[in-house]
Amino acid sequence: MNYSDLLKTLRDIVGAAHVLTDGDLSAYTRDWRKRAEGNALAVVRPADTEQVAAVVRACAKHGASIVPQGGNTGLAVGAVPDTSGSQVVLSLRRLDKVRAMDPANLTITVEAGCILQNLQTTAEAAGFLFPLSLAAEGSCTIGGNLGTNAGGTQVVRYGNARELCLGLEVVTAQGEIWNGLTGLRKDNTGYDLRDLFIGSEGTLGIITAATMKLYPLPAARLTAWAAVPSMQAAVDLLGLAHKHLGAGLTGFEVMNQFALSLVDKHLPQLRVPFWREYPWCVLVENSDHESEEHARTQFEGLLEAALEAGCVADAIVAESLAQASTLRHIRESIPMAQAEEGLNIKQDISVPISRIPAFVEETDAALMREIPGVRLVDFGHLGDGNLHYNVQTPEGGDAREFLLKYEDRINTVVFDSVAKHEGSISAEHGIGSLKVEKLPDYKSPVALNMMHAIKKALDPDSIMNPGRVLSTRI
Amino acid sequence: MNYSDLLKTLRDIVGAAHVLTDGDLSAYTRDWRKRAEGNALAVVRPADTEQVAAVVRACAKHGASIVPQGGNTGLAVGAVPDTSGSQVVLSLRRLDKVRAMDPANLTITVEAGCILQNLQTTAEAAGFLFPLSLAAEGSCTIGGNLGTNAGGTQVVRYGNARELCLGLEVVTAQGEIWNGLTGLRKDNTGYDLRDLFIGSEGTLGIITAATMKLYPLPAARLTAWAAVPSMQAAVDLLGLAHKHLGAGLTGFEVMNQFALSLVDKHLPQLRVPFWREYPWCVLVENSDHESEEHARTQFEGLLEAALEAGCVADAIVAESLAQASTLRHIRESIPMAQAEEGLNIKQDISVPISRIPAFVEETDAALMREIPGVRLVDFGHLGDGNLHYNVQTPEGGDAREFLLKYEDRINTVVFDSVAKHEGSISAEHGIGSLKVEKLPDYKSPVALNMMHAIKKALDPDSIMNPGRVLSTRI
Repeated sequence: MNYSDLLKTLRDIVGAAHVLTDGDLSAYTRDWRKRAEGNALAVVRPADTEQVAAVVRACAKHGASIVPQGGNTGLAVGAVPDTSGSQVVLSLRRLDKVRAMDPANLTITVEAGCILQNLQTTAEAAGFLFPLSLAAEGSCTIGGNLGTNAGGTQVVRYGNARELCLGLEVVTAQGEIWNGLTGLRKDNTGYDLRDLFIGSEGTLGIITAATMKLYPLPAARLTAWAAVPSMQAAVDLLGLAHKHLGAGLTGFEVMNQFALSLVDKHLPQLRVPFWREYPWCVLVENSDHESEEHARTQFEGLLEAALEAGCVADAIVAESLAQASTLRHIRESIPMAQAEEGLNIKQDISVPISRIPAFVEETDAALMREIPGVRLVDFGHLGDGNLHYNVQTPEGGDAREFLLKYEDRINTVVFDSVAKHEGSISAEHGIGSLKVEKLPDYKSPVALNMMHAIKKALDPDSIMNPGRVLSTRI
Repeated sequence: MNYSDLLKTLRDIVGAAHVLTDGDLSAYTRDWRKRAEGNALAVVRPADTEQVAAVVRACAKHGASIVPQGGNTGLAVGAVPDTSGSQVVLSLRRLDKVRAMDPANLTITVEAGCILQNLQTTAEAAGFLFPLSLAAEGSCTIGGNLGTNAGGTQVVRYGNARELCLGLEVVTAQGEIWNGLTGLRKDNTGYDLRDLFIGSEGTLGIITAATMKLYPLPAARLTAWAAVPSMQAAVDLLGLAHKHLGAGLTGFEVMNQFALSLVDKHLPQLRVPFWREYPWCVLVENSDHESEEHARTQFEGLLEAALEAGCVADAIVAESLAQASTLRHIRESIPMAQAEEGLNIKQDISVPISRIPAFVEETDAALMREIPGVRLVDFGHLGDGNLHYNVQTPEGGDAREFLLKYEDRINTVVFDSVAKHEGSISAEHGIGSLKVEKLPDYKSPVALNMMHAIKKALDPDSIMNPGRVLSTRI
């Protein structure tokens, strides 16, 4: 490969100021959790879709592979270059415009580099809700959200990033531009290319813009906090919540006692309710299109039925929207409290909701058998069957040593249990390079073969984010 | 091709009684609207997924192409064989079992041949709603619904068949079985094969089973019927309905005066409200999870705001659930009334909702300019931007002659207008063979190339429903 020719061409396309090769590039080459640091041939920052297409054509011509990158907040190490120094990081951050809003069609068209939070606030200023919401929303981009099919806290009602997207603009591996930016809710004119690119983690092409769904802003977002005697009770409560709140149910998060004890220990000012007395707490969110009062009445009906059914031991309904937000904040603080406690092993698994109680019971037991004293931070989006089933070092243990010794074994125990319960080893974070070598152990070979065939069909020279999602070793 | 060897093998696989070659096979070889009649080498009726896979392997070995078929109620002539007499119709109708229901996970797993109505009633008997609903529900199958990504009347709230599906079991073009029957709401472990098969009309593989979402049964399904002064007023009313009813809004159908005049003429006992005085009427459905009374209060709030905003001229709210059902029945009777009036040209188009008023105004005018006296039956799912923009012969004209003379020209006028307004020439019916030669005129060549590449990757010998969706002439 003639690097200097390629670099010259890239400078011609995007301007020399936007081809970064020197200085500290770690913001682009190191992943967010600092699990991996690569070397880039260059970081290229195109200004628009045409420039993205030209960059892809140039890289294709020179045989350089491309790592598309949004906010670089991914959790599966899928958006940083490898260590070869031969890959081009293509940052979409400068494509950050809101191209159009169509209130009567309930859609907004944005470029890939638009920060999720900007999208949320733009929608809200116009009286609409863009419901995708997750911890990194202040720095992740909608292109990255779509590339990884991000989930988050509102999936129980609104679905993942995929379900919120109506149309895409994509630069193909050949450097062509596909304008599929439809604002249509029904379009049956051929194969679903949109959903093929969503969640493909930049391995088939580069998402440069998207048309996303909007919803009317709810009148009130109220929360309730309930102590439940068991995980099965939490599942039962979820069923009641679906019945009593209908589509108002926009969040259903479960947290175990140890997770909440860490919040209490490291963030005592948050005053976690009920955590000392009960093994599990649940945060329920009701987004009501009528009023805060109506939301409260709905919650009262739910909690009355739940107390009667024995699936709730104690509960409070937020007395104000401010208190509702405080309760949400407790849930959102678990990862930070965990980090304060020390290094840990993060999981992102899902199983059918009905199997969550058995999954947790069996996996807890298996891990405690293997590693005496291990501490389990179980929390997550029970409404979607998605747990962040995280593992913390035994009290007082050396975390680095623990990870080195046990990480692989712990992953195997958890993943095998997930497989037994017909679940997924990556619910919302994706495969990236983090789980790429594990995937063949847990995915149907028929599905894997089809994935490889599609990769070959759309990116025959494998220049798009090679080694991510699909192992190149097979 | 050695037909007798193949037929012998097929008989060995499914039993001689389920390989039909003689007698009247028109139920399998003629499409539902009687627009096409083909010849089958055989109609094969496997009993289970393993037999489907064996049939595919046998056909692949002998180079015979396969036409998968469910209830044969499709509107795009995609499920009947061509006239060559060399294609095997693979009927999924014997795979009709409900395999499992998982109430806590809100899912049901069914085989492809399960009749949609059976799925609805099975869910309802267990206290759940399966929301997919369309005219052919008494005879169409869930496999066909998924193969064509069926839409119907509840899309504004619940989405198309695609959005209701969590997992698939598929027999590939190689005769392998992919078990992707996950009940997971979050699973980011690779490319979205599920959505690639959904809507591919049997051209990539054969859907043999699916895990579908369930919802709690609403407490009441109430309807309102409103006369509106213009299509723009109908769009404005839709915006208000989203705000006032929230996710309760499960149906929003628009009907023009001529469509309703046909119902009044041919089915006078239905007593269509308001049709004489106003150019358009709208049917709004509110599925309320609280009570009929609450649904009514919600409707009153909506209609008050709409009257004040001037987007509703007159309105009634159904006085009972029975009357609600009667109002729905008027809307559903339009196709029958149209058939009584004589042959007509059916359209199934979508444009962004905000552009519907301009689309209708311009296209009406263009057609009336070209064909004096033409009568337009405009009705459809305004909530999804989907109109069945149908064209009826001028009063007293010879319908057969009219169709022969004008059908192509009318399609071109309508499709060109759809393209101008960034819409779709097939919103919910699919491409089949009916629109396969039109598609290249209206679809992005970049998208078409990707579709061809995917077809070649997954079905390299093109044995799966060739000539449907993708033209073999390209």
